[in-house]
Amino acid sequence: MSNLRVEPLTPEAFAEYGEVVDLAGVDGERINYGNTEKFAEMFQIDTAAKGGHTSVHLYRSQPSALPLKIELMERHPIGSQAFIPLHNRPFPVIVAAADAQQLDASTVRVFLSNGHQGVNLRRGTWHHYQVSLGQVSDYLVIDRAGPRDNFEEQRLDPVLLIEI
Amino acid sequence: MSNLRVEPLTPEAFAEYGEVVDLAGVDGERINYGNTEKFAEMFQIDTAAKGGHTSVHLYRSQPSALPLKIELMERHPIGSQAFIPLHNRPFPVIVAAADAQQLDASTVRVFLSNGHQGVNLRRGTWHHYQVSLGQVSDYLVIDRAGPRDNFEEQRLDPVLLIEI
Repeated sequence: MSNLRVEPLTPEAFAEYGEVVDLAGVDGERINYGNTEKFAEMFQIDTAAKGGHTSVHLYRSQPSALPLKIELMERHPIGSQAFIPLHNRPFPVIVAAADAQQLDASTVRVFLSNGHQGVNLRRGTWHHYQVSLGQVSDYLVIDRAGPRDNFEEQRLDPVLLIEI
Repeated sequence: MSNLRVEPLTPEAFAEYGEVVDLAGVDGERINYGNTEKFAEMFQIDTAAKGGHTSVHLYRSQPSALPLKIELMERHPIGSQAFIPLHNRPFPVIVAAADAQQLDASTVRVFLSNGHQGVNLRRGTWHHYQVSLGQVSDYLVIDRAGPRDNFEEQRLDPVLLIEI
């Protein structure tokens, strides 16, 4: 087993894996007679390949035991997947190099969202299923539905441990 | 000016206007080795008409002065529009009869979300732009982008007042 350090979630550090969905530092457009600031199309929804369409789900995630034990990673080869936290508490985002056919455990990285930041995983990005800290946590999930298998999974051996 | 009473937001009462997006009382499907309860496709995204596609925005809404003054209503004739609160505080949803070509002010109703409930407005539902109470409030908005005009607006005369 080996240990991974946790990195802050920033758009630059995360660019290889997808987009950070965050209003901090972004200017919106005033609509609704000035009452609303609209941040339009905050991320790229990539769901149309091979007859797909956009679907929206809610995920209610149980808190994970610490240290986190990373035993497997998954990816969606033909669609993006966004996780928007509805709970406003920090949570980890665990990813690995996007393009490899086989998962390379040496590329696994752990980013910590501040709880206001969501992520949109680029199609094909290896990631751990969403894990939560401390409490049951809800997320809005925006991904691809449609024909064709859009799921791959690989086991990690040895298992990785993450202290948070 | 006339006054409107505020009604609780329930799926039954709101059915004429759209869907209530709410996990209360709903059973999900266990995924991710039992760690996640998935509530799949919680609402009907209706964005594909006339070459449209789904787009996702964040809206940051200023709190409105009370009583609310309802001076105009809008609708999107060729797409649904969902508002998912990211703030967990109650907010009003102001709608009117969906099918009328001309807005009928006598049909305006006000529902109060408990802050965990979102709404998905059916295409063509007359509604007020999203208003918030007390504090600046963020929403995730899921609607249609694409060719063709998807916006109509009408003024109310007399203005309606809502005490909350």
